[in-house]
Amino acid sequence: MNGLFTSRLVGRFIAPAMAACVALSVAAPEALAQQEGRRRRGGAQEAKPIELTPDQVGQLTRIANDRRLNVDDLLAAAKTFMPSGRHDEYVLFSSGGQSGQVFAIGVPSMRLLRSIAVFTPESWQGYGFAGDEDPVHKSLEINGKPVLWGDTHHPALSETKGEYDGEWLFIGDKANARVAVIDLRDWETKQIVKNPLTISDHGAAFVTPNTEYVVEGGQYATVLGYGYASPEQYKELYRGMVTLWKFDRARGRIDESQSFALELPPYWQDLADAGKNASDGYIFINSFNSEMATGGVEMGNPPFEAGASKRDMDYLHIIDWRKAEAAFKAGKAKQINGFPVLMLDTLIADGIMYFAPEPKSPHGVDVTPNGQFIVVAGKLDPHVTVYSIDKIKAAIAAGSTGKTDEYGVPVLDFDAVVEAQVELGLGPLHTQFDDKGYAYTSLFLDSAVARWTLGGEYAKLNPEQPWKLVTKTPVHYNIGHLCAAEGDTTTPDGLYLISMSKWSVDRFLTTGPLLPQNFQLLDIAGTGTAMPVIYDMPLGVGEPHYAQMIKADKLKSWKVYPEIGWNPHTQKLDPRAPKKGQEGVTRDGNNVLVKMTAVRSHFFPEHVEVNEGDRVTWRITAIESAQDATHGFCIGGYNINLSLEPGEFIEFTFVADRAGTYPFYCTEFCSALHLEMMGYFHVKPKSLGSAERE
Amino acid sequence: MNGLFTSRLVGRFIAPAMAACVALSVAAPEALAQQEGRRRRGGAQEAKPIELTPDQVGQLTRIANDRRLNVDDLLAAAKTFMPSGRHDEYVLFSSGGQSGQVFAIGVPSMRLLRSIAVFTPESWQGYGFAGDEDPVHKSLEINGKPVLWGDTHHPALSETKGEYDGEWLFIGDKANARVAVIDLRDWETKQIVKNPLTISDHGAAFVTPNTEYVVEGGQYATVLGYGYASPEQYKELYRGMVTLWKFDRARGRIDESQSFALELPPYWQDLADAGKNASDGYIFINSFNSEMATGGVEMGNPPFEAGASKRDMDYLHIIDWRKAEAAFKAGKAKQINGFPVLMLDTLIADGIMYFAPEPKSPHGVDVTPNGQFIVVAGKLDPHVTVYSIDKIKAAIAAGSTGKTDEYGVPVLDFDAVVEAQVELGLGPLHTQFDDKGYAYTSLFLDSAVARWTLGGEYAKLNPEQPWKLVTKTPVHYNIGHLCAAEGDTTTPDGLYLISMSKWSVDRFLTTGPLLPQNFQLLDIAGTGTAMPVIYDMPLGVGEPHYAQMIKADKLKSWKVYPEIGWNPHTQKLDPRAPKKGQEGVTRDGNNVLVKMTAVRSHFFPEHVEVNEGDRVTWRITAIESAQDATHGFCIGGYNINLSLEPGEFIEFTFVADRAGTYPFYCTEFCSALHLEMMGYFHVKPKSLGSAERE
Repeated sequence: MNGLFTSRLVGRFIAPAMAACVALSVAAPEALAQQEGRRRRGGAQEAKPIELTPDQVGQLTRIANDRRLNVDDLLAAAKTFMPSGRHDEYVLFSSGGQSGQVFAIGVPSMRLLRSIAVFTPESWQGYGFAGDEDPVHKSLEINGKPVLWGDTHHPALSETKGEYDGEWLFIGDKANARVAVIDLRDWETKQIVKNPLTISDHGAAFVTPNTEYVVEGGQYATVLGYGYASPEQYKELYRGMVTLWKFDRARGRIDESQSFALELPPYWQDLADAGKNASDGYIFINSFNSEMATGGVEMGNPPFEAGASKRDMDYLHIIDWRKAEAAFKAGKAKQINGFPVLMLDTLIADGIMYFAPEPKSPHGVDVTPNGQFIVVAGKLDPHVTVYSIDKIKAAIAAGSTGKTDEYGVPVLDFDAVVEAQVELGLGPLHTQFDDKGYAYTSLFLDSAVARWTLGGEYAKLNPEQPWKLVTKTPVHYNIGHLCAAEGDTTTPDGLYLISMSKWSVDRFLTTGPLLPQNFQLLDIAGTGTAMPVIYDMPLGVGEPHYAQMIKADKLKSWKVYPEIGWNPHTQKLDPRAPKKGQEGVTRDGNNVLVKMTAVRSHFFPEHVEVNEGDRVTWRITAIESAQDATHGFCIGGYNINLSLEPGEFIEFTFVADRAGTYPFYCTEFCSALHLEMMGYFHVKPKSLGSAERE
Repeated sequence: MNGLFTSRLVGRFIAPAMAACVALSVAAPEALAQQEGRRRRGGAQEAKPIELTPDQVGQLTRIANDRRLNVDDLLAAAKTFMPSGRHDEYVLFSSGGQSGQVFAIGVPSMRLLRSIAVFTPESWQGYGFAGDEDPVHKSLEINGKPVLWGDTHHPALSETKGEYDGEWLFIGDKANARVAVIDLRDWETKQIVKNPLTISDHGAAFVTPNTEYVVEGGQYATVLGYGYASPEQYKELYRGMVTLWKFDRARGRIDESQSFALELPPYWQDLADAGKNASDGYIFINSFNSEMATGGVEMGNPPFEAGASKRDMDYLHIIDWRKAEAAFKAGKAKQINGFPVLMLDTLIADGIMYFAPEPKSPHGVDVTPNGQFIVVAGKLDPHVTVYSIDKIKAAIAAGSTGKTDEYGVPVLDFDAVVEAQVELGLGPLHTQFDDKGYAYTSLFLDSAVARWTLGGEYAKLNPEQPWKLVTKTPVHYNIGHLCAAEGDTTTPDGLYLISMSKWSVDRFLTTGPLLPQNFQLLDIAGTGTAMPVIYDMPLGVGEPHYAQMIKADKLKSWKVYPEIGWNPHTQKLDPRAPKKGQEGVTRDGNNVLVKMTAVRSHFFPEHVEVNEGDRVTWRITAIESAQDATHGFCIGGYNINLSLEPGEFIEFTFVADRAGTYPFYCTEFCSALHLEMMGYFHVKPKSLGSAERE
C-alpha cells in the first residue's frame, strides 16, 4: 500500500535528532504579528479601498436575506467584525463578579481574549494548583481559613496624570474585602491584600490620578476588626470605613505598612471615585442606608430594602486624601486589629471629611474628565445630580453651615454645592464620559443608556443645550454599570460604550436556568440621537460588575518571559531555575529535590522515583522562547497542574502521600508529539521498603 | 431643587408595599423570547427581504474602508453576525481542557454562551462553594485526596440511534481518569465517577449509538488499580484498559454496578469511536507506543517522543462490545481494585478483540455516518487510512491469520481490511463528516483543514473522484481537533466546521505570555475548493480539546426549575425546601437549622445568630419563577457562595468556626434594590457566652 511507504518517509520526523524539527515546525510565522499602530476602528492587512461591484452587492444581499438580516444588521456587522489576525482597538478589563476572576475582552469585536485568575483557583492558568505549599493558597486565607473565591466588582487600571498607563490592574473582592494587584506585563495576579477591618467591602478598587493610593471603600457596616455585635448595638459599634492602600510602583506591590484607613459612620458606603484635575486630591464616596436601618423582616420590621430607602437624602462623602495622609503620617491614627485608622473625631477636627446631601440611595459617583463636576446617580431618583468642585471648595472655605450628621461630620448645603440636576429616567446607576462633552448614564429600571450634555466648559463641544437629556438607547436588559472607551479618565475617547446588561432573558439560547449576562456594544461615535447597539455579547463565565476600557496600544505586555528561567513571582531570573544539563533527582533524608526542564517534546527527566511520604520539591524550567510555546505539567491523581509559559520557572512542593505509579504529562497541546511529552512519577509504597538514599 | 421633589415621587418605589413593583419591573418581556424554529442560518425578526440602496452600499463601503475590511470580510461578517435577540443555530459543547470545565458556544456567532463547572470548583455557579459538606467536594476526592481540577478532553452528547438527542453530556478528565455526567435540562454536572483502574485516561467520553455505554479509554499504561511498578516491569505489570460505563438514562446516572473494563496490552490507547449502522456493536480504539518504550532520557535512552515512534505500525483495537457485555454478564470478569475486568485471555478466547495494523502513532479514529468505514489519522503519516467494516468482519470470519501481538491478540492482515489511503498532508489528527460525502481532517503540522471525498455509497454525492483530497484551507495555527455540525453522527449537517487551533500566536492582542486558543469557523456549505475561514474566536478561559456541535433546537433546556423548591441534585421537588411562612432559625444542641427564602429583594430572615463552633445547616428556597431571576447567596469570610436559580432549593452545612458579625448578601444583580438584599450572620464569640438555646 502506498501509505506504508510514505509513512516510512515521514518517519524521519521522529528520529531523535530530528525531533527538534517537528517542534520548530509548529512555531507559527511571527512576521504576521507585526501589526503596529491600531487605527481608528482597526489595523490593516488590506490597505486598498474597496468598491463593491453589483455582483458583490448581490452576494451580500443574498446572504443577508438568507439569514434575515436587515440593513442595520449589516452595518453593525461591518463595524464589529474582525478579520483573522486583525487586532482589536481596545481591551475591556471586566470584573468577573462572583467567579472571582477578571476578563479581558477585545473591542469592538467583543471577543473574550483571556480570563485572569484572581481570587478563585483556576487550573488552566495553574493558579492555585502548584502543590500543597502554593503561595496562592496562603494569599487566599482569611483568619487562617481558605476562602477560595471572590466577588470581583471594580477593576481599576493604574493611572499616570489621570490617564491609564497600562501597567497595573487592581480589583476588589466585595465578599471578603480584599484587593488584588495584577501585573499587565504577564497578566498575572501578584498580590492579594485582606482588609483587616471589614469582612466585606464594595467600593474597590479606584485609584488616585497617579496611583499613589488604591481606594477600597466599604459597604455593609460591621464592627471594625471583624468584631461581633448585635443589631441593637448598630449605631454605637458598627462602622463604615475606607482604606487607602499605598501602591509602590517600583516594587509592583501594595505597601501595607504605608496604608491606612478612615473610620466612617455606619452608613453603607457605596462606589467611590478619585478627583482629578480641578478636583485632584479628593475622594468622593456615595452612601446609602444613612437611615441606619437594621432590617429584621423576621421580627416584623421592614426589610433592609425598605428600611434603607426611607430618607430622601443620603450623604456624599468628600474626603481630602492628602490631608488624611498628613494626619496618618503625623501619627494621628489609632490601631484596630493592627491597622492604622483615622477615627471620625480626627477627620472632623482636621477638616478631612465633609458631607453633602445627595438624593436617596445613590450608586455611582463619577468625576468629569476635567475634574470640575461630580455626577451622582441615585437609583431611586430619576435625575443625576451634578456637584461642582468649585462650589464644594467655596462652601468648605465659607465655614460651618451649623449642620452635621449624627456623628458630627459637617454637612454642606445642598444648594450651595449642586451645579445641576438632569432628569434621565428610572434607575440611573453609573455615568461615563466621551470626548464630545456628552455623559452617558445607565438606567437600570428603564433598561436604557442615556446620553446627556455636560455644561461648563463642555458646553461648547456639542450643539445641544447643557445639562439636557439628548437620547436614550434601549438595552436588553437591566443595565448595571456601563463603560466607555477610557471613559473615566482625563481624556475619554468616545467611540465605544459597553452596556453591562445584567439580565439577558431571551437574548440568547437558553442555557438552563442560569443564563449569561449581556454585554452590549453601543456605537457612540455619532452625536445627537445616533447611538445604536451594534453587538450583543453573552458572558456566561461569571457576572461582571464594572469594567474599564483601555487603548490596546497602551499595553506593553510581554510575548514571552524576558529570560529562560524567569520567576513570575519576583519578575526576575531565578538562580534556582534548572538549566539544560542540570537536571536530576537528589535526596536529603525525606526531602527530594527534582530539577527538570521542559522543551518540545519531552520532560527531562522522564522518571522520578520517591518513597511514599517523601516531601518533594520540584523545579521546572520551560526552555522555550517562541511565543505561545506554552507547556503544562500535571501529575495525575495529585492535585497539581502548572502552566509553563515560555521561559517560566516554577518550584512547587508537595508530600508524596499516595503510593503508586503516576503519569505526569504536558497539559498544553504543544507539538505534534505532545502526547508523548510525559513521564512517570513512581511513589514506592512503604510496604516495599525505601528507594535508595543518597 | 427640582430633583428633590421628583425624588420624593420616586420614593414610592421603595415603600414596603411597593417593593414588589420594583422587583416586577425588572422582569424583561418574555414575549420577545418566542422565536421558535431556527432556520438555516438563523431565526427571524425582520422577515422582509432587503435590497440595498446606493446610499446604503455607500455607507457600508465607507465603514469597510474606514476599518480596512475587504469584500471577503464583509461576506464573512454577514455570515456570522447575530442581531440582538437572534439565537444561534448550533451549540458547540467544547471541553475546556485543563480548566476542568465545559464551554457552550453559539454557532455561527462564536459567542461563549456558558461555562459548565465540572471538575474544577467555580464560584459563579456556586459549584463546590456550598459549605464544608458540599457533595461536590466528596465527588472530587480521589483516594481520599481532594483533586479539584480536571483535564477535560472529549465531550460526548447522548445519542439515540446514532443521533444526538440533546439530553445528556459526558466528559472525561484525562489527568485523573474520571467521567462526568451533565444534565442538559439545567446544564449542571450531576455525577462524577473515578476510574478504579487507572490514574489517567484519554479516550473519554464516547458513547455507543443508544448511549448504552459511555466509553472511557486509557492512555498511559500503569499498573491497574493504582499499583506501583518500576519501568523494568513495564511489559509484565503495566497495562492499558478501556472501561464501559453503563448509563442508566431513567436515573440519569452511570450505574457503576453494571459497568466493567477490558484489560489491554500496555500500548498507549488513544481516541475511540463507537461503530454505528453497519459497524454497530463495535468500539474502535487507536493506540501508539506499541513499542512499549519506557523513555528515560535521563539515563541516555531516547525520550518517549522518539522511543514511542519507532515502529511503522501500531494497532487499531477492534472490540465487539456486545460480546464483551455477554462475557461480563457470564461472570468472566476478574476483580481489580473492586472493579470487574475482562482479562486479555478472555478477550482472546471469546473473540472479543482483534487488532489491525495502523500507520504509526495515530490520533483520531472516526466512523463514517453510515458506519461503513473507519478513518484513522496517523499524525506521523501524511495519509488517512480507511478501514472497511465489511472487510474487517470478513477477515475475522476467515479465521486466524496466524499473527498475534506479544500478548496473543489476533492481528488481522492490513491489506485485508483497508479500503483506501488518502494522502492529505502533514500531521493528520482527526476527521469529521458532512452531508455531501466529504470528510474533513485536521492537519496539525500543515496548519490546515483538508476536505476529501469518501467512497462507497458516498461516491455519488459529490462530483469529485472518491478517496481524493479536494482542497485544504489554512488555519492559524496548528489545529488539533475539528468539529463539524453533527459531524460525528449518523446524519451530519455540513454548514459549519470549527478548527480548534491550538496556537494563536499573533492572531489576537498579546495577553501576556499565556495566549488564548483560536476557534476558527469555516463555512463548509459549499463544495470543491470553497471552504473559507469566516471567524476567529479567541478562547482564553482554558484549552479545549474536542467538541461536538448540536442543532440548538434539539436542546430542551429548562428556562426555570419546574417548581419552587426544586432540588437539582435529585431533579425533584424537595420536601425540605422552606416555603414562604416557614422561615426561621431553630437549634438542637450545637446544631442550628436555618430555613430561609429569597425573593426580590430580601432574604427572610435577615439576621441569623449562632454561637461560635455551632454546626449550621442552612436551607434556602429561591421563590422566583421569572426566567433569569437568579439570586446568589454568600457569607463574607466564610468560603460560601451559591447560585440560586429561579425555583431552586439548596441546603448547605458548615461549622461557624470564626466569631464575628458577617454580612451575607445576594451576589447576583437581581433588582434595583439588589444591594439592599443582605443580612447579618452573627457568630457570638465563646468569650461572650452562648446565645440562648431552645
